[in-house]
Amino acid sequence: MEHSALLARLGTKALVVTGAHSARANGSLADVEAALRKEGIAYAIYDKVPPNPGIADAREGAAAAIEAHADFVIGIGGGSPLDAAKAIAVLARNQLDDERLFQNAFPNAPLPIAAVPTTAGTGSEVTQYSILTNARLETKTSIASESIFPKVAFLDAAYTASLPLRVTVNTAVDALSHAVEGFLSVKATAFSDGMAISALNLLGAALPKLSGDIGPELRQSLLDASSLAGMVIAQAGTTAGHAMGYSLTFFKDIDHGRANGLTMAAYLEFLADQNEPKLSRLLAALGIPHLGALKELLDSLLGEREGVSLAEIKKYASISIKAKNIGNAPKKMAEGDLVAIYRASMKIV
Amino acid sequence: MEHSALLARLGTKALVVTGAHSARANGSLADVEAALRKEGIAYAIYDKVPPNPGIADAREGAAAAIEAHADFVIGIGGGSPLDAAKAIAVLARNQLDDERLFQNAFPNAPLPIAAVPTTAGTGSEVTQYSILTNARLETKTSIASESIFPKVAFLDAAYTASLPLRVTVNTAVDALSHAVEGFLSVKATAFSDGMAISALNLLGAALPKLSGDIGPELRQSLLDASSLAGMVIAQAGTTAGHAMGYSLTFFKDIDHGRANGLTMAAYLEFLADQNEPKLSRLLAALGIPHLGALKELLDSLLGEREGVSLAEIKKYASISIKAKNIGNAPKKMAEGDLVAIYRASMKIV
Repeated sequence: MEHSALLARLGTKALVVTGAHSARANGSLADVEAALRKEGIAYAIYDKVPPNPGIADAREGAAAAIEAHADFVIGIGGGSPLDAAKAIAVLARNQLDDERLFQNAFPNAPLPIAAVPTTAGTGSEVTQYSILTNARLETKTSIASESIFPKVAFLDAAYTASLPLRVTVNTAVDALSHAVEGFLSVKATAFSDGMAISALNLLGAALPKLSGDIGPELRQSLLDASSLAGMVIAQAGTTAGHAMGYSLTFFKDIDHGRANGLTMAAYLEFLADQNEPKLSRLLAALGIPHLGALKELLDSLLGEREGVSLAEIKKYASISIKAKNIGNAPKKMAEGDLVAIYRASMKIV
Repeated sequence: MEHSALLARLGTKALVVTGAHSARANGSLADVEAALRKEGIAYAIYDKVPPNPGIADAREGAAAAIEAHADFVIGIGGGSPLDAAKAIAVLARNQLDDERLFQNAFPNAPLPIAAVPTTAGTGSEVTQYSILTNARLETKTSIASESIFPKVAFLDAAYTASLPLRVTVNTAVDALSHAVEGFLSVKATAFSDGMAISALNLLGAALPKLSGDIGPELRQSLLDASSLAGMVIAQAGTTAGHAMGYSLTFFKDIDHGRANGLTMAAYLEFLADQNEPKLSRLLAALGIPHLGALKELLDSLLGEREGVSLAEIKKYASISIKAKNIGNAPKKMAEGDLVAIYRASMKIV
């Protein structure tokens, strides 16, 4: 509310993009509506974003934006509504077939976007990415364009207070995967490394405490870490963990953050021989003595691994190896390397 | 040149703001002119910014901007031309007396600003600050407004290649003072801390190497550190080092970066009893074992201290204690504390 004037800078008619339930339950939607009323901004609500939204969802939201004559978009929620809001902002101003949507060059500037994260993991509030499920390619595909960086993000950890422990852990692991993959990306810079180290400092202190009651300070720390880690991947991109995780989400319906975490330890072990001293800096920033201790921490956070067959693993590897972000890994990766990492990470059935 | 399109986004007629000589000598002005010609952008050059510019200089530059019908400003140089460019951008669009200039709320949006740093220290290319000498108050006074954040900055260490060793050291110490003061500011956040740690990592490795020949990699490292440290103070502000340094510059004509460095060790010793563990994190990020070793490094970089009398010190302390940034120090400071820090830092004559 006290920052409501920041919304008035974006336009005069908003489309609020969110999911069906959580933005109502955690108070974020009511706060945004109050801020819009205070500023005299008209708005419509599109609350049909499902988890892991696809292109069709974005098209439906864009139709709602056009019908409402919206001149800006407010995304409220976890990564799914925020990423949907970005794609909606593009499609409300551009008629694009699926292929051109992912080519990242839009004839008309997308609608301006405000973001209100209600989970602490995605970092979407500070990135130029919109990740959409792509049924044709059987994976997730990303729009990546400077033009969809949110103009403003509101980080209030109170909206994350009611998240169940499982969601808190999975989203925190998502943030960790952003900091870890971005820090070890070939596109990392001194700028992204600063954000990564700060995120790893926060996560190293927070992750061991994620059980039972999670107080407001710890919640704020997770939300700060998530946005910092989002800034890391905005600069440095994600790498193999995300490429491999998308298959686990698409075929096994494993939560995105958890999917990224499942392969993390094996990926880092794969990198270890060629990536000192950066791997040591990563562990030091986490306050963890060695890779084995990070593996133990991840095991305790993730619990039992899901079962997959070898045939499934081969299929996932054949899809993942084609992902662009594999090229960001700081060691050359072949399809067989991905098979080995999946095997070391999952329960083979 | 390859990024010239970024200038075309800002407008169609530029005022290029720079000093009399260095932008011509280091090739930056020629590169900017070539980029403007390539984009078909008309421009005028205002090359009269002196070191430590004052309000009158900014007014003269603003008159040049108005006369040229400039719709954006490009600052090229060290902190003086960049800070002047920001004040010119404000005054070209706003008729303000001196007092209102420093009240940071402008009826009309300043002209958009592009920044091309040719030293590695000020960080002005990424801050919302314009520091101008204020003859009436006998110190420097700052404009601080989101509206003067440069829209784009071009970081090319080649423009710093010909800087004399003395300037390289003084500007590197300026960057260090930004990272150190911002990291220990009461306004520091997880976001600014990440940038600070990355800047301190780079500076800790670079500072001991600043003698004799300085190669391109070291130059780029200093420029990255300078911009990172600029982002730190954009968030967390500066503290006592800057407040005390302004008097040394105003009355003794001591270079700004050097002035900030002269009092640094004594300031950190003053803070030490109340600021663990942050002081330890600072030294660890620099790769320096203890405060004494940082003092030795600064002594070797700064050489012999300038002489000041006790009467002068008392005067400086009485001015510095009124600076707003004293309030950012993480320990309460009285005028007597400033006297003691000046005494420990200067040669008393």
